[in-house]
Amino acid sequence: MSAGNAVIGQSGGPTAVINQSLVGVVEALQASIAAGEGKVNKILGAHHAVAGMVKDDYIDLTTRTQDFLDRIADTPSSALGSSRDKPDAAYCKRIFESFAKQDVHYFFYAGGNDSSDTCRIIAEMAAEQGYDLTAYHVPKTIDNDLMVNDHTPGFGSAAKFVAQAFMGDNLDNAALPGIKINIVMGRHAGFLTAASMLGRREGKNDGPHLIYVPEADFSEEKFLADVERVYTQHGRCLIAVSEGIHDSDGNPMMTKLQDEVEKDAHGNVQLSGTGALGDLLAGLIKTKLGEKLGQKLRVRADTFGYLQRSFVGCASAVDQAEARQCGREAVKHALAGEHKSGSIAMIRKPGDAYEIEYKRIEIKEVAALTQHLDPKYILDGCDIAESFRDYAGPIVGDLPVVESF
Amino acid sequence: MSAGNAVIGQSGGPTAVINQSLVGVVEALQASIAAGEGKVNKILGAHHAVAGMVKDDYIDLTTRTQDFLDRIADTPSSALGSSRDKPDAAYCKRIFESFAKQDVHYFFYAGGNDSSDTCRIIAEMAAEQGYDLTAYHVPKTIDNDLMVNDHTPGFGSAAKFVAQAFMGDNLDNAALPGIKINIVMGRHAGFLTAASMLGRREGKNDGPHLIYVPEADFSEEKFLADVERVYTQHGRCLIAVSEGIHDSDGNPMMTKLQDEVEKDAHGNVQLSGTGALGDLLAGLIKTKLGEKLGQKLRVRADTFGYLQRSFVGCASAVDQAEARQCGREAVKHALAGEHKSGSIAMIRKPGDAYEIEYKRIEIKEVAALTQHLDPKYILDGCDIAESFRDYAGPIVGDLPVVESF
Repeated sequence: MSAGNAVIGQSGGPTAVINQSLVGVVEALQASIAAGEGKVNKILGAHHAVAGMVKDDYIDLTTRTQDFLDRIADTPSSALGSSRDKPDAAYCKRIFESFAKQDVHYFFYAGGNDSSDTCRIIAEMAAEQGYDLTAYHVPKTIDNDLMVNDHTPGFGSAAKFVAQAFMGDNLDNAALPGIKINIVMGRHAGFLTAASMLGRREGKNDGPHLIYVPEADFSEEKFLADVERVYTQHGRCLIAVSEGIHDSDGNPMMTKLQDEVEKDAHGNVQLSGTGALGDLLAGLIKTKLGEKLGQKLRVRADTFGYLQRSFVGCASAVDQAEARQCGREAVKHALAGEHKSGSIAMIRKPGDAYEIEYKRIEIKEVAALTQHLDPKYILDGCDIAESFRDYAGPIVGDLPVVESF
Repeated sequence: MSAGNAVIGQSGGPTAVINQSLVGVVEALQASIAAGEGKVNKILGAHHAVAGMVKDDYIDLTTRTQDFLDRIADTPSSALGSSRDKPDAAYCKRIFESFAKQDVHYFFYAGGNDSSDTCRIIAEMAAEQGYDLTAYHVPKTIDNDLMVNDHTPGFGSAAKFVAQAFMGDNLDNAALPGIKINIVMGRHAGFLTAASMLGRREGKNDGPHLIYVPEADFSEEKFLADVERVYTQHGRCLIAVSEGIHDSDGNPMMTKLQDEVEKDAHGNVQLSGTGALGDLLAGLIKTKLGEKLGQKLRVRADTFGYLQRSFVGCASAVDQAEARQCGREAVKHALAGEHKSGSIAMIRKPGDAYEIEYKRIEIKEVAALTQHLDPKYILDGCDIAESFRDYAGPIVGDLPVVESF
């Protein structure tokens, strides 16, 4: 294969470390150019992902300095801009036209399961049309729901935010006792909601006292019974609820609320960017338990929202380093030329010490599929087992220390 | 006056630094005891503020170690527990009975304007009943609305959280353009909402592009015109809205939403712990501007909620040091014995360098009064002037650096 240009794009919801992956790709490509390998000429960033590719809207990254790239890497959100467009055949054709015009033969796409599917479609179309393209997916999602992977870049930092948020809100709830509900992101996977337990201290009766993930069916009756039990026992109750909870028929609790359910191009229900679910659950408790638990019952709900993926200054150092390495690994495999496409997966090595192995897999192994929280972590449908710490603790890293009487 | 015991309480909403003030009081009292001044015997923490005092529910702090106290000081929320009770005459009588029983002659109360009023009532009742009590209010409120004070402990850390949240959400909004509303705390004062502008970078077109504070009347018509103008110009719009916005008749926008407005013991409307205001405003934009601005218009709302006052790991170092010093100053004046009551006020010294002077004032100068954002900072009812940085910047301290293309 003769030398060509490379395109990198960032797709789907931003995270605190997706720019680490961007920079991992760019610096590995720069290293290849500097070494005179003759594989890549120019490094192009697609402005707003596929939406930029179809408009020939690229940012030249070939000679960006390491200093500048390091600052980009440390910045949350997608520096190139993102997109939620899902390319169909006509859309992909326009992408190829742009790639041909720009002499692009390497394509790197950082994103979650929907985005990996986009990458897969483009790679397959390229093969069908005889266009010489090497396409690699770089994993990213705070939902942590990619198959094969032990976990995904972005999850650790979002989980750190959620853990620190619950640590503080637990102390707040202890100071002014009442019932407090916090809605956590994660769509159909409960990993991020489960991370709410990471700041709980032994013997301190810390919240969250109840945790509801989408992997367990949600029942209003059981929820109310759980809340009443905890409140009666402790005089307060802090609750973590995944935005994706659903009843036993699979109907999201959110659909019971919104007159007109808004869906995006991927057919996903809008779960974030509204406080509706939290307010529904708070209203339910007030209506059904208010009289029983006392007139002065304080019931409040917060929805953490976009802060979980974009807050500045709360990234996990482990997550940052891994996201960077995923970008570098994608370039390593792409330039090696053995496979025309692939995805990078993070596999945890067996043993007590935390260590990650980066492995090339087929894109179809992750595309459009959802990994779920292992049922072994879910206790009675309303709590997360202590053993979840062994899984998520090393990814999140050290949490601040708090003290109480 | 003979030696007696001291009580310290923490009242109202928790902050990231109210434990600094607690520890400032305790360590200054411990120093007096260690120096053999013969003024204070025991140091008692009131469990849940006035609610604990009427039940003789105290935590002995006399011999707590500096290490332990330092960890408490670094922990957000009110370590002693808080209360929103507003004592009436009968309630105060029970407090005196407890104080007499416990031989309490020094009372320190950290809180905002409602709490300072509680402190004032207790001090006046003590004087009327001939009970020997020295009562000092220690300022605290993330709303930053205490009179006389340049600013209050708790504001700087909450403002830092809000600034970092907007820095991240601005990058998120740039990556996936749309209209995004974030609801910020502050009740009737706009300081915290104004702090959303502190992370804006020069020449980067950063949001928030619109900022609405309670010090300017809110009109739906102007709001919609502002949003349309910004969105048409920039293709996106990030908006900071205070929870306390109201129409020109003074009606809070929240009362237009809630069938039954919940009020607390102080007659305050429930503004926090619900996503209703954000969802109302998002719905308004979708309904009124959706067709005009395009079918794919993304409108989202987040309500920052309790995270602003309790998030672990985002305190301002300046705020921490000042809160600690306020506690020490209260003890200094109380033990000096010149005045039976007072409040500590932070006054900014004139000049270019940021420096704070701590001054004893009468409690009535701050009790139950509200300080408002200076109108000079409010631009056309929908933005905050750059000069607000000179005011709030030194209190918040350095913010993380972000980079973009």
